[in-house]
Amino acid sequence: MKLESLHDLYVLELKDLYSAEQQIVKTLPKIIDKTSSPELRRALEAHLDQSRVHAARLEQVFEMHGETPRPVKCRGMQGLLDEGGELFGYEASSAVRDAAIISACQRVEHYEIAAYGTLRTYARQLGHDRAAAILQETLEEEAAADAKLTSIANRRVNIEAVRTA
Amino acid sequence: MKLESLHDLYVLELKDLYSAEQQIVKTLPKIIDKTSSPELRRALEAHLDQSRVHAARLEQVFEMHGETPRPVKCRGMQGLLDEGGELFGYEASSAVRDAAIISACQRVEHYEIAAYGTLRTYARQLGHDRAAAILQETLEEEAAADAKLTSIANRRVNIEAVRTA
Repeated sequence: MKLESLHDLYVLELKDLYSAEQQIVKTLPKIIDKTSSPELRRALEAHLDQSRVHAARLEQVFEMHGETPRPVKCRGMQGLLDEGGELFGYEASSAVRDAAIISACQRVEHYEIAAYGTLRTYARQLGHDRAAAILQETLEEEAAADAKLTSIANRRVNIEAVRTA
Repeated sequence: MKLESLHDLYVLELKDLYSAEQQIVKTLPKIIDKTSSPELRRALEAHLDQSRVHAARLEQVFEMHGETPRPVKCRGMQGLLDEGGELFGYEASSAVRDAAIISACQRVEHYEIAAYGTLRTYARQLGHDRAAAILQETLEEEAAADAKLTSIANRRVNIEAVRTA
C-alpha cells in the first residue's frame, strides 16, 4: 500500500480506528467485570454500547467511500489495553482498582479523541462533508465519555481510594 | 508491589509516565529526521527539548516523595510509537508523510494529556500541592504542543497533502 494522497492516509487511519473500536468492544467487558463502583460500571457499560455504535458508524463511512470495512491492527490501542491489563496483575483495594481502571480508560478515550479529531479534519479537507459530520458526532461522544470518567473520579472513586490509604 | 492506597497508584503511574517521557526522548529524533516541513520540524524539536524538561520535572516529583526515579516500561507509549514507526514502512509523498507524523504525534500528546491530568488530580487529592503544580505546568505545555500541531496541520501540511492527490 502506498500513501500518495491524503485520501490514502485517511483510509488507512479509518482501518486503524476500526481495529481500535473492535479491540475496545472485545476487552471492555473484562474490565467492567473488575469494577466495584456501580456508577463506574454503568458508565463503562454505556461506553461499551457506544463503541459498538461507533464501529457501525465507521462501517458507514467506509461504504460512503466504496471501501470494504477492514481493520488494520491498531498497535497503539493494543499497547493501551495491554497496559490496562497489567494493572490487574497488582493486588489492589477495590477503590484503588477503580481509580486505576478510570486512568486506563481515560488513556483509551484520549487515543480516540486524537484519532477521530484527525480523521474528521481529513474528511473536511477532502470535501467529505457527510463523513466529517459522522466522525464529529463520535468525537463529541468520546469527549463526553472522558468528561464523565473525570467527574466520577473526582467525586467518588479517588476520594474512596485516599480514605483507604 | 501492592496497590493498597491512591499513593501507591500515584507512584506507579509516575514511573509509567517517566518511562513514556524517556521513550519519547529516544524516538522523537528519528521522527524529526523524516519530516519535510520546516515548521513541523521546529515544533517537534521544541517538543523534544520540552520532553527532556518534563522528564527532569518528574525526577523532582519522585524526590519530593522520597522515591528514586525509576521507569516502569510504559506499554501504552510503546504501542503508540510502534504504530508511528509502522507508518514509515509505507511509501509516501513528503506532504502525506508529514500529515501522518502529526497524526502519530497527536496520539502521543493525548496520551500525555490523559496521564498528566490523572497524576495532577491524584497529587491534589493526596495533598501534594507542590507536585500538583509541577504536573499542571507540564500538562499545560502538552496541551499547547497538541494545539500547535493542530494548527500546523490545518494551515499547511494537510492542504499540501490534498494538493498532491
